[in-house]
Amino acid sequence: VRIPIFYLDDPRFTEKFFTQTLDHFNFNSMGNGTFNQRYLITDQYWEKGFGPIFFYTGNEGDIWEFALNSGFITELAAQQRALVIFAEHRYYGKSLPFEKDSFNIPQISLLTVEQALADYAIMITELKQQLGATDCPAIVFGGSYGGMLSVYMRLKYPNIVAGALAASAPILSTAGLGDSRQFFRDVASDFESVSSDCTDAVRGAFHQLKELAESQEYRHIQSAFALCKPLSSAQDIHQLNGFLRNAFTLMAMLDYPYSTHFMGNMPANPVKVHRLKKDVWPIVYNATGILPCFDLYSLYLECADPTGCGLGFDSLAWDYQACTEIELCYESNNVTDMFPPMPFTEEDRRLYCSKRWGVVPRPGWLNIQFWGDALSTASNIIFSNGDLDPWANGGVRTSLSDSLIALNISGGAHHLDLRGSNEADPVSVISARKTEADLIAHWVKMERTRLQKFV
Amino acid sequence: VRIPIFYLDDPRFTEKFFTQTLDHFNFNSMGNGTFNQRYLITDQYWEKGFGPIFFYTGNEGDIWEFALNSGFITELAAQQRALVIFAEHRYYGKSLPFEKDSFNIPQISLLTVEQALADYAIMITELKQQLGATDCPAIVFGGSYGGMLSVYMRLKYPNIVAGALAASAPILSTAGLGDSRQFFRDVASDFESVSSDCTDAVRGAFHQLKELAESQEYRHIQSAFALCKPLSSAQDIHQLNGFLRNAFTLMAMLDYPYSTHFMGNMPANPVKVHRLKKDVWPIVYNATGILPCFDLYSLYLECADPTGCGLGFDSLAWDYQACTEIELCYESNNVTDMFPPMPFTEEDRRLYCSKRWGVVPRPGWLNIQFWGDALSTASNIIFSNGDLDPWANGGVRTSLSDSLIALNISGGAHHLDLRGSNEADPVSVISARKTEADLIAHWVKMERTRLQKFV
Repeated sequence: VRIPIFYLDDPRFTEKFFTQTLDHFNFNSMGNGTFNQRYLITDQYWEKGFGPIFFYTGNEGDIWEFALNSGFITELAAQQRALVIFAEHRYYGKSLPFEKDSFNIPQISLLTVEQALADYAIMITELKQQLGATDCPAIVFGGSYGGMLSVYMRLKYPNIVAGALAASAPILSTAGLGDSRQFFRDVASDFESVSSDCTDAVRGAFHQLKELAESQEYRHIQSAFALCKPLSSAQDIHQLNGFLRNAFTLMAMLDYPYSTHFMGNMPANPVKVHRLKKDVWPIVYNATGILPCFDLYSLYLECADPTGCGLGFDSLAWDYQACTEIELCYESNNVTDMFPPMPFTEEDRRLYCSKRWGVVPRPGWLNIQFWGDALSTASNIIFSNGDLDPWANGGVRTSLSDSLIALNISGGAHHLDLRGSNEADPVSVISARKTEADLIAHWVKMERTRLQKFV
Repeated sequence: VRIPIFYLDDPRFTEKFFTQTLDHFNFNSMGNGTFNQRYLITDQYWEKGFGPIFFYTGNEGDIWEFALNSGFITELAAQQRALVIFAEHRYYGKSLPFEKDSFNIPQISLLTVEQALADYAIMITELKQQLGATDCPAIVFGGSYGGMLSVYMRLKYPNIVAGALAASAPILSTAGLGDSRQFFRDVASDFESVSSDCTDAVRGAFHQLKELAESQEYRHIQSAFALCKPLSSAQDIHQLNGFLRNAFTLMAMLDYPYSTHFMGNMPANPVKVHRLKKDVWPIVYNATGILPCFDLYSLYLECADPTGCGLGFDSLAWDYQACTEIELCYESNNVTDMFPPMPFTEEDRRLYCSKRWGVVPRPGWLNIQFWGDALSTASNIIFSNGDLDPWANGGVRTSLSDSLIALNISGGAHHLDLRGSNEADPVSVISARKTEADLIAHWVKMERTRLQKFV
């Protein structure tokens, strides 16, 4: 799910570019080139040459969006005197290897999880050298897919990162280890928990929409939902259903206790604020109130991620990732959730991805490559999840050892713990952040001992 | 160092082919294809569905060569009731993704360490399913570069392999962490230890050769070394020096206490057997005595591996690997060793590889990707090395923890421990194999507990 918005730059960060290897896994073909990878850096808290490095493993969007919505990292840096780096993921934001051609075939094919991890491994290693920080332990941070990348960095490059805080990282479901009904069931649960009548009413509304569509009362539907353009086909109704389901999804994910500007503009407690029918989607799609009507196809794009790909170039990149390595075959079915039945099977995915990008997804690959649930040999990872977040149950919910810690944040939405402190924060997230701070300080101390052995 | 020879097939193994993904790291370009990867398998010792899987991570050659020179693995399989698989490395033997075009640019570019590891990860996972072995712990075995791959499998895929026996695996020197003088110094040491006059005499002989060359007494040299073709240039002399140095190298590496047919035919204790000048190279290049003379350019190929690439297609593949990921910048200098000064710097490598394969080596990449000496988070790896082996000091020589065990085999040459038992075996290798057997049995037991948790 992704909606691009624009921010004023945070003056604490300096925006820089790193000369990055284009293809880490092929020395011929396109492999000899480099591209400019963007990163944000601030050393204002850093005890130079000694304090740790807090490195955000950027995910599917403009890196400023994550930097400006992850205030916990800079707050923690101030406490622990850390250097802070937010690295932008290749093919997102301004880190486009082939500029405007980046989303063509085959140029897009250098967009993989493995390439992104190698980017970060090399960037950390080289920036450490440039900044006189070779003895400074690096800790990775990430939310959502960025949290998955943080986990993977610790699994695959523990020589480079001493620990990972993975907030709301659905590492199990995206590796094909989940239940395809889980995601939209959990979206619905959020609404159910606010009002027991709510989900029935939504279910009823979707049923009513179905009946209107079947009797082709398109003008009635257009008016009811304030749509800009007339509807004329089952495809349009399908698009409308996706558009509406996406609105509920975003409200559930972003159900923070205060208003936010992350992935769009959202009031405080949107799940509580919402009311049925006309009032649901404007919260998501027209927060500023300036749209006179809703254009279904320009506000929502169907893609290989049934939770939504957002819009713009970033959405193309994410669609490609959902077509290759990241498995997101979630369905709604109107039985375990309140949404219309919208199946999305491996076969649907295969057909779509083959047609759209000329690729064949490889179910099971992520599970082999990034260990699935066989994590017993790993260490120093925090898996934090909020129980309001529909992504939560796709991740690790119980601790696996004393250094593989699952934190549950009661009343928390999508990686709430990464956000800066707010007076509306529930106690649970304050407590989780304290635990995270303690664990990270411990990891840094242990890693410093290890690094200094080599001096 | 590699000399292709042919074997009668071992009837214990069945030769099979696995349909393998061509490009694990790119879903477009050449990535949608598959190729046939060869493997050898025997279940004659296996307690079906329960016993462990002993998986040899094939290295730079025909897989039969390794299977027929790693008798310890089948002996251990008989003891521990294991299924045995020897997997052939892509681009070697019969596992050629593009048949005869495999060594062209860009087809060769899918030859990387990462691709090979992913091949093995997928092969183990899928064969386990096919054979009803999903609860059977897998242990990887490998010698030399194959041992490096075994280490890397345990580092990068501990979800799939429970432990690794890495025999004579120079994981440090090949990651750029060694001393470029180490290799040929240690070749020379082997000869020095047999006879204190020996290295002086060799040094004198090389000096004499240099003087003859400087006075252009090419016919004298041709006759002294029984060369087939006249010499005519400094390049020819350079080739002769490489040819001779390679003979000493092979004798040191393959200094087994009994005659062998691995990487050529070698008498027992070749380092002791050798005598100066005329008698050195025939041991290596003319063991069968059928060559009337020596053709310098057909018996030895200069390449990006100064210890020798051997001949044939396999040598092309190895040259490519030495030009990309595997760093082998060893020099001889006539000061720390007995050989003529033959420098091979990073710059020499870069120029050669750029010209030969259109690639630019990436020094430091292997160190980042496969953890260099920062192995503290790893577990269940045996690093065995023989003190006669010039590769030994490029590897891990001291234990790093109680599950990262370094074994030294006194009087052992290149991965002697992987060979089958022989009555000429020194006590050291018998003892090492016993330790290896015990550790592997322990790992299998622990892993079985872990796997059964998920049942």
